[in-house]
Amino acid sequence: MFVISEMINGMYQKVARAIQAKDAQVIQALAKEQVDAGADALDVNCGPASREPVKDMCWLVETIQSVVSVPLSLDSTKLEVIEEGLKTAKNRTIINSSSADIERLQKYIAIAKKYNSSLIALTMDKKGVPQDKDRRLELAAQILACAQENDFPTDEIYLDPIVLPVNVAQKQLSDTLEAIRDFKMLASPAPKTVVGLSNVSQGSTQRSLINRTFLIMAQAHGLDAAILDPLDKDLMDVLITSELILDRNIYCDSFIDAYKKSKSR
Amino acid sequence: MFVISEMINGMYQKVARAIQAKDAQVIQALAKEQVDAGADALDVNCGPASREPVKDMCWLVETIQSVVSVPLSLDSTKLEVIEEGLKTAKNRTIINSSSADIERLQKYIAIAKKYNSSLIALTMDKKGVPQDKDRRLELAAQILACAQENDFPTDEIYLDPIVLPVNVAQKQLSDTLEAIRDFKMLASPAPKTVVGLSNVSQGSTQRSLINRTFLIMAQAHGLDAAILDPLDKDLMDVLITSELILDRNIYCDSFIDAYKKSKSR
Repeated sequence: MFVISEMINGMYQKVARAIQAKDAQVIQALAKEQVDAGADALDVNCGPASREPVKDMCWLVETIQSVVSVPLSLDSTKLEVIEEGLKTAKNRTIINSSSADIERLQKYIAIAKKYNSSLIALTMDKKGVPQDKDRRLELAAQILACAQENDFPTDEIYLDPIVLPVNVAQKQLSDTLEAIRDFKMLASPAPKTVVGLSNVSQGSTQRSLINRTFLIMAQAHGLDAAILDPLDKDLMDVLITSELILDRNIYCDSFIDAYKKSKSR
Repeated sequence: MFVISEMINGMYQKVARAIQAKDAQVIQALAKEQVDAGADALDVNCGPASREPVKDMCWLVETIQSVVSVPLSLDSTKLEVIEEGLKTAKNRTIINSSSADIERLQKYIAIAKKYNSSLIALTMDKKGVPQDKDRRLELAAQILACAQENDFPTDEIYLDPIVLPVNVAQKQLSDTLEAIRDFKMLASPAPKTVVGLSNVSQGSTQRSLINRTFLIMAQAHGLDAAILDPLDKDLMDVLITSELILDRNIYCDSFIDAYKKSKSR
């Protein structure tokens, strides 16, 4: 499981304040903490309060990459913010994210190609979020066809089926799980799959329990990556144990520590 | 998920002592505790120390069914012990268990038919436990063909793919998970599937964590039933949450308590 930490996001007050004050120590401590906890990549989002998102994104990228060398997932609704972040980034990058709307997607794919970046693509379009599995598959196929037409490698696409909250769209969660499995069959090389995990428990009680249970079920369906909070120890413990069951780590009595040590740089 | 409690088993000293002393209160308290914790059925096993297993099985069945009305899973390596238990049982029963050896299986199916019982059948034979998914499927097909030839309903068969310990046969766990999914396609009506959960963590550290992670992955693959310890709260919490994600319980803020209340009789 490729773990993308969701914690460097201006929607969190601590991060928003650090961005505004250009307090590098706060951001760098956060970045190191995430990687030590098992993050393979860091999502970077200036947040809704940023008045100069291009400048803030570039500052965040520089600040983070001076202490950790993991890939960065550049997260913004504005393509110009992402592009300036890509110019600044020294290591691998992921663009987060495009929708399945062809016009938008073509622009994002062009930028991803130009900067040798991976791309998260959401299976939603102007009509909104799909209400069933078939529509998710249809939009996924549209995304992958667009990648192929533009000579962009399909295994650099992370398809996101959009996980809805259990208290809003409970019936759709099994659809989402099955979509994760079926997406892999839509192109060769197979696309990767990703979820923004915490959305599943938005507005619910027992958030951590719901998050980790959904994550394991998604891992059982072949999920490749998740945007999540690696500081949630219970979540990371089951994530690591799922990898063990899938034979991706070798069992030893201290398999949880061994996994974290293998990740921290 | 059909939860079969594994706790009324003479391999536990407390139970062995209660059987020997014919201390009904201990067994009845245990039975009620399991059902209150969410058990849908109770496995009943006299244990290896029982000198009069037929008598002990009948006493256990009578003792338990005077306080709870859940189905009993009669667990013994001796068919005569199971048959006397079946004669004594007033409620639904499950025979635990036959192997896939035809001669043995035919006897067990005959008894299951006679007493209107379900039957757990292990995908193993005289050659031992399968080393891969294909052999598990082959033995499962053999079991289901035998059921069909003997006019025994295939959906009264619980196929057990035999979960091996992660520290012994790590590579086989994904085979086992996939077998759980594929078994359902081998007959119509589809057979049920069951695992003896605690075996997955036999001899490992982090037993509860490994048990619950494997259980959720198996639920994601469509597992119908598991023999487990319902007093493991962390295990039951994820089990209930998996059912929520699969849309088998309706979300409410107190969904865990609601599930347990719906089960306790």
